[in-house]
Parts: sequence; structure tokens; C-alpha cells
Amino acid sequence: MPRPPVTRPDDLTDALVRVVVREGLDRVSIRTVAAEAGVSIGTVQYHFATKDDLLLAAYRRVINQVTERALAAAAGARSQAEFVRTLLLQLLPLDGVREAELRVGIAFSARSVHAPPLAELYAEAYGALVDALTRALRDAVTRGETPEDEDPERAARQLAALADGLAWHLACAPGALSAADAVAALDARLAELFPRDGPPAGP
Amino acid sequence: MPRPPVTRPDDLTDALVRVVVREGLDRVSIRTVAAEAGVSIGTVQYHFATKDDLLLAAYRRVINQVTERALAAAAGARSQAEFVRTLLLQLLPLDGVREAELRVGIAFSARSVHAPPLAELYAEAYGALVDALTRALRDAVTRGETPEDEDPERAARQLAALADGLAWHLACAPGALSAADAVAALDARLAELFPRDGPPAGP
Repeated sequence: MPRPPVTRPDDLTDALVRVVVREGLDRVSIRTVAAEAGVSIGTVQYHFATKDDLLLAAYRRVINQVTERALAAAAGARSQAEFVRTLLLQLLPLDGVREAELRVGIAFSARSVHAPPLAELYAEAYGALVDALTRALRDAVTRGETPEDEDPERAARQLAALADGLAWHLACAPGALSAADAVAALDARLAELFPRDGPPAGP
Repeated sequence: MPRPPVTRPDDLTDALVRVVVREGLDRVSIRTVAAEAGVSIGTVQYHFATKDDLLLAAYRRVINQVTERALAAAAGARSQAEFVRTLLLQLLPLDGVREAELRVGIAFSARSVHAPPLAELYAEAYGALVDALTRALRDAVTRGETPEDEDPERAARQLAALADGLAWHLACAPGALSAADAVAALDARLAELFPRDGPPAGP
């Protein structure tokens, strides 16, 4: 008799993410995740004692995926301007992968307002993004690429908020804001922070 | 025998909003809203056939409240700079009322990704905000208060995204971003858009 395939915890968190992307976080239950993963409820419960444990593991996995992908994309940048732009464009829903991640990010961050363990993950990811942007801007000021009167940390918080706000508007009001307008709004701010940099490459 | 007090639909949507602020949108059901309002499940169902009807009515009510309050606050502004700043500060969770509204706004906009009727309300409110900001910025450019090279509509989309992004970060990562830093990030951008305006008054 063939042995049943082994279910890994990541198979279950990935199934949860698919349910969130397709139907929303309020449709997630041990039952719907088991059905999506094609396993029994008992198998889910063997790996995750509660739904909250499963949610936390799934959120951590998505945050790690976004962070790794964004850093990998930005790693090849030839200037701080390109690094910052590449990092921020990873937050906008400009392709299927980023749109799925954004849906999950919005759903989980909304839930995190009442779920301290999720909020802790969110705050950590936010801090890492602001730190990466601050370092890049500080370096750009030192090299004379960014005007001296820009406060690197304040500008980093602005850029993170601008990109996340545009992402939120694209996800929730797609008919009222086009992707091109969102990228143009971001690029206009980047042109002020990096005035010596040429016109940006496409998204 | 005294007649039972008459339950108005607004009593029920207000009860729903209190549940969302205190416990989150995933705790909302006909049952929890009935309990919060101190009425029977049948009374809720008399006014709202489904939970979705109740959610839509509650979201509409909150959006109307925020819009009315923001426009009332901004009505006394003596310049376009003050109008824009007052409007945007209403989006940040700088007091209990605005924090409660923001929690509801985040919860509902996250849900709206999978609920077209909610998304329609969101898109309408987003469009109204961008329109109000665009008009103010266009007027400021005409009067020479805002640099001519600023595109009013693009700047309006930027400001809406910046304020909403800062609000989201304050709500979801309160330990990683202070209210003062959020206001400073917004004010730094406003100082660029309204260079002739003096330093802003407090929040």
C-alpha cells in the first residue's frame, strides 16, 4: 500500500493564503484550510493546535516571502535611487504575485489591530522597511545625491506611507486609481529625493 | 404596560461599529450585534435581512460621519494650505473618535476587497477626498501659493496615500511610529506644496 503523502506545515499555510486571496480572511477556518489543502481536519490540528497558531504561521510566511523577494529585486540596484524605487514598487500590486501578497497583507494587518501576535510581526516588518529606506537615503545624502535638507528617517517614513497608501488605494479602489497614476505619484516624490537621477525605468 | 423602546436602524449600525472597534470585524454577527444593542436577534433581522445588509449600512454611516466631520473641521480654514492640512489630519488617529473610525475603516476596506458593495462605497469616498484635495491644490497653484510645476491631481493622490499610509502604520504598528513623527512626515510634504505658508498649528 502506498504511504500517504507527508503534509508539511508550509503546505497548510500556503493553503490558508490561497483561501485569503480568493475569498478573504473571514472565510478562513481549520475546516476551509483542510479542504483547500486536501487533508483532514485532524491533520491541520496535528500541526496547528488553534486557528490563531495557523494564522500567525501564515502571516510570518507571507512577510518572509515579500521581504526576500523585495530584497532580491533591489539587490541588483546600481544606485540608492534605484534601490529605493525597486523596494517600494514591490509593495504595489503591479502583477499577480504582488496583488495576492497585498490582499493577504491588508487582511492580516486589519486583523492585527485586535491580535497582538500579528501586530508584532507587522511592526517588525514595518521597522525593517523604514530602516532599509533610511540607510539608503542617509547614504544618498552623504554622497550628495539627495538634498541635505531631507531628513533621511522622516523621508523614509513618508515613502513607506506613500507606497503603502497607494497600494491600499489600488487594492480597494481599483476603479478610482490606475496603476500608472500610482507609479507616477511615487516617481514624482522620488524625483524630489533624487533630483540628479535620470527618469525612472518602467515598473 | 410601557411600550418597548423603538429600535432605529442607526442604533444597530452603531452597535455594530462598537463591536468592530472593540473586538474586530470578524466578531460581528447578527447575534453579537443584537447583544450589543440590547435587542433580540429578530429585531436585527426585522431591519436587516442579512449580515451583509447590516455591514453595508454600518460602513455607509461611518463614511458619512467621517466625511461630515472632516468637512466641518476644514470649513473654517483661512487658506488652502490650512484646508488641506485640516482635512488630512482628520484621517490620522489623533484622538479617540478618529482612532475608532480608523479601526472601522481599515476593517471594512480590508473586507471590501472581496465585497463589491463595500468596495463601491470605498471608491466613492476615496474619489471625493482626491477631488476635494485636487480643487484646493488647483486653486493654490492659480493663486501662486503652490509651485506651478506641481500637478494638482497627482499631488492630491500623493497626499491621500501619504495620510492613509501614515494612518495605517499608526493603527497597525503603534510602537514603531509615533503620532508626532506621522504629523511631521505629513507637514514636511505640505511645506513643499505650500512653501509660502507659515509653520503649521498643532494637530
